[in-house]
Amino acid sequence: MKNKRVDENLLKNIKGYENRKAYSSPFANQPSGIVETESENLKEKIRRTKVVDSLEEAIRRAGLKDGMTISFHHHFRNGDKILPLVMKKIAEMGFKNLRVAASSFTKAHEEIVDHIEAGVVTRIESSGLRGRLATAVSNGVLGDNPAVIRSHGGRARAIVEGDLKIDIAFIGASSSDCMGNANGVKGKSLCGSLGYAKVDAEYADKVIVITDCLVDYPNYPMSIPQTQVDYVVVVDEIGDPNGIMSGATRFTSNPKELLMAKRVLDVMLASGYFKDGFSMQTGTGGASLAVTRFIREELIKRNIKCSYGLGGITKAFVDLLEEGLIGQLFDTQCFDLAAVESIGKNEKHVEISADFYANPFNCSPAVTKLDFVILSALEVDKDFNVNVISGSDGIIREAAGGHPDTAASANVSIIVAPLTRGRIPTIIDKVTTVVTPGSTVDVVVTDYGVAVNPTRKDLLERFEKAGIELITMEKLREIANFIVGKPKEIEFEDKVVAVVEYRDGSIIDVVKKIKK
Amino acid sequence: MKNKRVDENLLKNIKGYENRKAYSSPFANQPSGIVETESENLKEKIRRTKVVDSLEEAIRRAGLKDGMTISFHHHFRNGDKILPLVMKKIAEMGFKNLRVAASSFTKAHEEIVDHIEAGVVTRIESSGLRGRLATAVSNGVLGDNPAVIRSHGGRARAIVEGDLKIDIAFIGASSSDCMGNANGVKGKSLCGSLGYAKVDAEYADKVIVITDCLVDYPNYPMSIPQTQVDYVVVVDEIGDPNGIMSGATRFTSNPKELLMAKRVLDVMLASGYFKDGFSMQTGTGGASLAVTRFIREELIKRNIKCSYGLGGITKAFVDLLEEGLIGQLFDTQCFDLAAVESIGKNEKHVEISADFYANPFNCSPAVTKLDFVILSALEVDKDFNVNVISGSDGIIREAAGGHPDTAASANVSIIVAPLTRGRIPTIIDKVTTVVTPGSTVDVVVTDYGVAVNPTRKDLLERFEKAGIELITMEKLREIANFIVGKPKEIEFEDKVVAVVEYRDGSIIDVVKKIKK
Repeated sequence: MKNKRVDENLLKNIKGYENRKAYSSPFANQPSGIVETESENLKEKIRRTKVVDSLEEAIRRAGLKDGMTISFHHHFRNGDKILPLVMKKIAEMGFKNLRVAASSFTKAHEEIVDHIEAGVVTRIESSGLRGRLATAVSNGVLGDNPAVIRSHGGRARAIVEGDLKIDIAFIGASSSDCMGNANGVKGKSLCGSLGYAKVDAEYADKVIVITDCLVDYPNYPMSIPQTQVDYVVVVDEIGDPNGIMSGATRFTSNPKELLMAKRVLDVMLASGYFKDGFSMQTGTGGASLAVTRFIREELIKRNIKCSYGLGGITKAFVDLLEEGLIGQLFDTQCFDLAAVESIGKNEKHVEISADFYANPFNCSPAVTKLDFVILSALEVDKDFNVNVISGSDGIIREAAGGHPDTAASANVSIIVAPLTRGRIPTIIDKVTTVVTPGSTVDVVVTDYGVAVNPTRKDLLERFEKAGIELITMEKLREIANFIVGKPKEIEFEDKVVAVVEYRDGSIIDVVKKIKK
Repeated sequence: MKNKRVDENLLKNIKGYENRKAYSSPFANQPSGIVETESENLKEKIRRTKVVDSLEEAIRRAGLKDGMTISFHHHFRNGDKILPLVMKKIAEMGFKNLRVAASSFTKAHEEIVDHIEAGVVTRIESSGLRGRLATAVSNGVLGDNPAVIRSHGGRARAIVEGDLKIDIAFIGASSSDCMGNANGVKGKSLCGSLGYAKVDAEYADKVIVITDCLVDYPNYPMSIPQTQVDYVVVVDEIGDPNGIMSGATRFTSNPKELLMAKRVLDVMLASGYFKDGFSMQTGTGGASLAVTRFIREELIKRNIKCSYGLGGITKAFVDLLEEGLIGQLFDTQCFDLAAVESIGKNEKHVEISADFYANPFNCSPAVTKLDFVILSALEVDKDFNVNVISGSDGIIREAAGGHPDTAASANVSIIVAPLTRGRIPTIIDKVTTVVTPGSTVDVVVTDYGVAVNPTRKDLLERFEKAGIELITMEKLREIANFIVGKPKEIEFEDKVVAVVEYRDGSIIDVVKKIKK
């Protein structure tokens, strides 16, 4: 500005402004990356596109360095192509010693073991590990750096609170405009909700959106807003939507699953919480999907409505929404293509971030208002502790997901699991790994009866009154032992291969290396 | 958990976990306010409503203390009832020495002068001051604490960067559920976009939502999400929607305004940026609304579309959206009831926060992609500096709004102003207060001709080629002097009554107390 009005001498005489800067020129204090260079015509030099020519250029400009933390989301599940693509490029570029924080690792990510073995990756933080990566971690491939397992809410908390500082977030999006407004509901490779990526985008130092469909500005919806995106890269293919489906989503005809589903329904009906406006998270798996169908019939019969459904969303929930039997869906992750399609067109199917979903440290995540959550388990012990991470062989194989978050919050948390799976008992003395503490588990429904946490005297009374067949965990364990014999104790070395963080950041358990 | 798996001794032997906490119980580390008390049945003690009985209780529980900073939004403009209600209660409760950071002060807020005089309020930060408050500040009512004037983008930046730390944000919302999911598009007292409040909600320590319409959980849309809200208060009436309208929104028949509007259109057409997919912010006022109508005709004639419209949104923009002549609206603030209605029902009418709108320090606010902005002015000087804050009498009377933000960012920033208003010249030697620096102003359109910033040689050339009548600022000033005479210099004391922050936080000008 010619004839500058304010200088530091003037400011010195104004209370509170003694050390403030006087204005010099319009972009003098702008953070880097907004104005590319100065010129006589200022307007020409404002960066109005973030599209760069290649992934390599984006990585370079984002300033990746050895030892940094990079993040990924797993909304494409087994169909994800972003993590393999980026990790391959990063390995080629010669980076080492990276921490990879993915919202989950799926079977699409097994090659990361090669990058660990090559020293490109030395630390892993995630909700879950599966397949070859899980086995390698269990066998100690990470050396002195245990993998960190967090629930979805715990991961959001860690990112928001700064425990997990992400240097660069790589976000695959089925569509993006040139400024980085991105979503998973338009384009060719749809994944629906970008709930996990939303947290990464908000808190990472640098954000790279990777898309296979660049659209005109402005893109809508802005699941990832331009205000958080540094670079946009266009690639051939970001993922295969058919890989999203994680398990059976057809209605089960397995009599054991139907029996358990019916028992879950009985528990819900008798609990005192099954009334107009109740809320629920169910999830995938045969019994859960069957429960959702049974619930539908009850809603119609009683002429009541469920206020909202939460979590990973399936076709069963979409159907309830479309029938008007549920008021709204809060969706962090689409579990099938029906959910993907629905979230793209139905305004009552609302995309939420993992922070909104379950971060225990914000003013209240969506889990807080849950009446029911129906959860699965690999193992449950007599203290109601639940393991959803490691198999009975002590090897990591699954994911914490929203398990501890929803169990802690729902008015009635229901674990549904068969007493035994093949020769493996589900109800045991002491779970191999505690992911969800028993004090937060209210009811365990098995094919051999329903056990209620003794702290829930209210539920016990109501269930007894309703004539639900109750059984103790001790009795269930006895029956399991009778059927498959007492399981052999697994022997572990002292070496810790993974730590399990509870949602609040405290360490609830560790996974040790098994003795061979 | 019985049989605790992890203790600090175990953690001491894990690299990086030497000082971490072992899990103790599900809510041991929860921040206050989530779990109310412990009990045997944990679930009963989770706080599942944030509704408190009175405003007083909310203020008390939020922990208001003397000297703190509280914030308000001005989406109800002259119809706002929240700020008066809250300030009255706070004064009754005996608090002193507060800093009030409102996104703007309107005529509905004049009583705040009484609170300043009583010592309840000692500092004021805002985009603008009007009426009795503006005059009182100009006369030095704030003593040694100058009022702080920031643009909408500058305010968002100051909040995000921590320069303006808000202790308690009071947010009026036309609907809220019991957890604080709130918006301005449902209920009885609608204001539409909550764009300014969104930033306050995200960054304030405590957030109190005040509504006159409590709805069933979950409320939608979640303009303000439950994750950011601490308390919900229900009152009789939060505001009068009829107070939103700030100026004439009818089509002008004033020949001077029509002439200027036509010239603005000519400038746009000749600029090289008026092509399919261009973007614009226009604003209110006779000439601006007339421009929007002229633009409509050109869009139809040329069979092209505007990609997005930005800013405070009026019926003129809503009409373009509904006709399909504009692709999307980004709305920080609804300027009339047609806009309020539209944002509640049209998904292409998108509510954005002031951060998304114009914070210069995020990865790119929406202003970055603007082709055209049409802005008004109280004064423009020969260096193209613009004053939108103080009158020719040196008294504060208006608001910075998005003026400096859009001027700095748009490819073509156009100021439209009559050469004189009554006996007061608009084009003068030296503006009373610089709000928008001349280096960011490209074109000044008056009823006496069009002046182009000499740095925009590209525009000068194109306008000459198109036969637009060009004139220099010097010549405009001469004509103004000829018509109304050279204005008398205002005499000021040394006392600074307000500082004007540029969007980047540097101080671009100050307002001094006038000599009486």
